[in-house]
Amino acid sequence: MEELLKRAFSGDPRAIGRLISLVESEAPTAKELMKQIYPHTGKAHVIGVTGSPGAGKSTFVDRLISYYKNDGKKVGVIAIDPSSPYTGGAILGDRLRMQSHALDPDVYIRSMGSRGNLGGVSRATHEAALILDACGYDVVIIETVGVGQSEVDIVKIADSVCLVLVPGMGDDVQIMKAGIMEIADVFVINKSDKDGADKVASDVQLMLKLLGEKEWIPPVVMVSSYKNTGVDQVKTELDGHRHFLESSEEGKKRRYSKLEMEVEAILRGEISLIVERAWKEEREAGILDKLACRSCDPYTLTADIISKIVQ
Amino acid sequence: MEELLKRAFSGDPRAIGRLISLVESEAPTAKELMKQIYPHTGKAHVIGVTGSPGAGKSTFVDRLISYYKNDGKKVGVIAIDPSSPYTGGAILGDRLRMQSHALDPDVYIRSMGSRGNLGGVSRATHEAALILDACGYDVVIIETVGVGQSEVDIVKIADSVCLVLVPGMGDDVQIMKAGIMEIADVFVINKSDKDGADKVASDVQLMLKLLGEKEWIPPVVMVSSYKNTGVDQVKTELDGHRHFLESSEEGKKRRYSKLEMEVEAILRGEISLIVERAWKEEREAGILDKLACRSCDPYTLTADIISKIVQ
Repeated sequence: MEELLKRAFSGDPRAIGRLISLVESEAPTAKELMKQIYPHTGKAHVIGVTGSPGAGKSTFVDRLISYYKNDGKKVGVIAIDPSSPYTGGAILGDRLRMQSHALDPDVYIRSMGSRGNLGGVSRATHEAALILDACGYDVVIIETVGVGQSEVDIVKIADSVCLVLVPGMGDDVQIMKAGIMEIADVFVINKSDKDGADKVASDVQLMLKLLGEKEWIPPVVMVSSYKNTGVDQVKTELDGHRHFLESSEEGKKRRYSKLEMEVEAILRGEISLIVERAWKEEREAGILDKLACRSCDPYTLTADIISKIVQ
Repeated sequence: MEELLKRAFSGDPRAIGRLISLVESEAPTAKELMKQIYPHTGKAHVIGVTGSPGAGKSTFVDRLISYYKNDGKKVGVIAIDPSSPYTGGAILGDRLRMQSHALDPDVYIRSMGSRGNLGGVSRATHEAALILDACGYDVVIIETVGVGQSEVDIVKIADSVCLVLVPGMGDDVQIMKAGIMEIADVFVINKSDKDGADKVASDVQLMLKLLGEKEWIPPVVMVSSYKNTGVDQVKTELDGHRHFLESSEEGKKRRYSKLEMEVEAILRGEISLIVERAWKEEREAGILDKLACRSCDPYTLTADIISKIVQ
């Protein structure tokens, strides 16, 4: 493990991939690894990119990478692939769109499955971002496929969130329902040469007004990834947002609230394992029969279980 | 409290409403109440009705109620209203469509907000269903507004789940993604006099085939709530499904798995409170500063917290 960490810290992409696989598969050594990795983190700018399927996120991310590269930055990308809940199989995203950087040693691109429970996915994504941070990537981009509740939970761990919208998708309601408007720091109106782009931009401005005044006013940037216009401005806005996070009281609050979420996610995971063990014992002792015939109730039962676990 | 329970058990709708409000607001007395209520439960047939907004669920439920009433049954309805995550305000569903039963003493209709965390909503909904069960309602219908992951979690507590689909919504993908195909016991193709209804039905049959053989083969029923055709057959199928649950090994397995979910949801809720308390102490002692400067890591910290809580 020592050896693996050393190789990863020196930038060996195979060693980095191995580390991410270990946390993704929740290997027994993963927790110990993360303890070693954590002290080296906190330097990268973690950027979440979310938006409906078809909004052109991968092409946009591909362009964005180039601008960071021009600044001499190393860029890591974590692309979340959705999996159908009933087959468990991952639908492969169109990662080809990022192929212009596929052979670049300063760009690391990794797909992660989103199978399993939601808590597990956001935790693994977060840990992968920490690993890339510790291994010297200056910018870590997390790209989700859709824009539902689960994606919101995943991009919440980012320092800065880009929401990519396009004209003619009519997904305003879904986006508002998922609560993504409040967590977006930069709005990207992609395919902005298409009809209706101005309407999308003004709708966003209106929704932002409805959400009320905030210290950081999310900019709305017109982009065409295809023509490569506006992406440089997105990078400028993201740099500005990072500066805001580092220099303002509001920024500190956000960093602390992310640390809280981080600890809480791990706590929830650990405690579920302990509860599950105690509950399994009860089930093996036949408690379900008693519940079924109502000679016991779940409220008394859970109080019993908890009194056995907790000091 | 004794008095309130007595009045509710005797069928007083105001007392029943008060009980549901107590569990919905997570009142301190709620747990004690549920202990008293639980032994009286297990008689009702709990039916979940879900489907996209605009699929005509409320009108369908209104018709379904009539058929149960014809059998001399008392019917309780719990309608889940969604709330926008960013205002916290509940959008009122179109409950008017159930108005034909509004003054009927044998029909109890209750709207519940879906604000707050998801676990809280499914738990409150489940407890409301238990209350109606204990208070003598033979059939309890839980109607959700949308068909997302949260709705799946809510209708999972039902004995039988109806999925209402309509032609021309094109929501197959979303429904499949949410994993709702596997939990539906009866498929209702509503507005079946419209073009495309046969296509929806055959798509469903195909998807069911893809899911593989199961002991209960979910029927697909063509319905027009407007013309009131097919709803009687849905009721027949629901009665059949209930018989299946009561008489088969598979049915017993499902009942037991629901009991498990029930206990686990309460366990999770209780344990979170305990963990939150311990975690709050750490925060007040300034642990976030240490995490921020990386002089402590979340993995060591959570292990410490857990060792303090758990025996």
